Amino acid sequence: MNTSAEIIVIGNEILNGDVLDTNSHWLCKQLTGLGALVLRVCQVRDHLPAITEALRSALKQSSLIITTGGLGPTDDDLTLEAVAQALERELELNPQAFSWVQEKYQEFAQKGYVASAEMTPERTKMARLPHGAIPLPNRVGAAPGVLLREGKQIIVCLPGVPAELKDIFQGALLPTLQALFGAGAFAEWRARVACGDESALAPLLRKAVEAHPRVYIKSRAKRFGPDVTFIITLAARGQTREEAFTLLEDAWQTLSQVLHRAGIAILALER
Amino acid sequence: MNTSAEIIVIGNEILNGDVLDTNSHWLCKQLTGLGALVLRVCQVRDHLPAITEALRSALKQSSLIITTGGLGPTDDDLTLEAVAQALERELELNPQAFSWVQEKYQEFAQKGYVASAEMTPERTKMARLPHGAIPLPNRVGAAPGVLLREGKQIIVCLPGVPAELKDIFQGALLPTLQALFGAGAFAEWRARVACGDESALAPLLRKAVEAHPRVYIKSRAKRFGPDVTFIITLAARGQTREEAFTLLEDAWQTLSQVLHRAGIAILALER
Repeated sequence: MNTSAEIIVIGNEILNGDVLDTNSHWLCKQLTGLGALVLRVCQVRDHLPAITEALRSALKQSSLIITTGGLGPTDDDLTLEAVAQALERELELNPQAFSWVQEKYQEFAQKGYVASAEMTPERTKMARLPHGAIPLPNRVGAAPGVLLREGKQIIVCLPGVPAELKDIFQGALLPTLQALFGAGAFAEWRARVACGDESALAPLLRKAVEAHPRVYIKSRAKRFGPDVTFIITLAARGQTREEAFTLLEDAWQTLSQVLHRAGIAILALER
Repeated sequence: MNTSAEIIVIGNEILNGDVLDTNSHWLCKQLTGLGALVLRVCQVRDHLPAITEALRSALKQSSLIITTGGLGPTDDDLTLEAVAQALERELELNPQAFSWVQEKYQEFAQKGYVASAEMTPERTKMARLPHGAIPLPNRVGAAPGVLLREGKQIIVCLPGVPAELKDIFQGALLPTLQALFGAGAFAEWRARVACGDESALAPLLRKAVEAHPRVYIKSRAKRFGPDVTFIITLAARGQTREEAFTLLEDAWQTLSQVLHRAGIAILALER
């Protein structure tokens, strides 16, 4: 089964350098933990052709596509229009989404956050979803999330406000993703080694990579200067968590021996 | 002149959710400040076809492409190979880059950071650049940055370690970018308004957008709950800073009148 995923982040504020996108980092962590392989994250502007093109490109390679942002009431919220274009579907009023948005504004009006509960065109827009869409309840804000199936592929649209995105992901979306990724599991270990020279680590890592092709092994500088150390990450995917762990055990045995013979001390191993 | 820019972030650690990419945010801020329009940021894995495809796609639309990461000595550092493929050029030993890398390892060996200053294949790899490349000095780490011209387009490869990336950008690269973006200027204002309802703001913003098509106007929630406020961003590009400011002045005049008439208080304006 193909468990590849891709994230499309929508918003000029990201590309103008106003806002640091932390949503995609959080989603990458969640999806990887569920057993997905995240192939790409693309951040694009609030520009219909740019969003549509990003969706089309993602549909060519990923079984799951998650978009963030662009679901709100303003004219530059274009995500659902772009999804409709990319999938060649019509936008239509979704009665379930309409009733959720309506209830939300009734609640907001009662609390005095908004002047009236009237369903204006701007509010109604949040309930106009591509044909066949399943709305996902948002317990924090007004705009529902959206789930679409296109053959075996899944497209999910989440709001850009982090609290809303997390609420929908961990609430309505999680069971669908668990079913999609099934028994897939991901495990990752990190070792800290006393070696100030990544160019000397490279041939040692290569030996472990060659002997354990299913394990991803990578070094990264942790600290610079006289006390420089490197973090070596070992990561593997398996059908079960046990399988992923066994792959890491085997690779670590090779790698630790290779490091030992090269006189490089292992300072810590975080399983 | 087309001043579009694009950033390609390379590294599995980003897509696995291990590391939050802050480099692209920093670069977006710098490039926008120089007058560029950042069209897209793509984060891709350490996978040669994925990096090459991202470069080819960027070459179709952007006058400046900056890559981050994948310049180091290990086997999964694939950026320069991907650039060579995308531009159909050969990798070749660059004497200037070789001498910088060599000097750096001599310095590291003298300080005791590394065991020897020998130019191993792994260290030499950092000096094997696509044909026609100009190496950019890195005063922090070993791997030089790389600048390439392809017709009127510019491709720049920077290391993934933030301190190294910033050193090269602000040092060797800045004069080239200033020449590329010329007199282009970007200005941005932010207003905070007392309105708890983005759906009510939407038609008001639309009036200002229609009257001032060269100004980008967007709202974003700042705080939720009973004291919710919205930030309205107004941004414009001009040939000079004065031109960009005049565009914003005019748009703000329209917008502030529209807000006033709708009874929405302006809490702050940050120019």
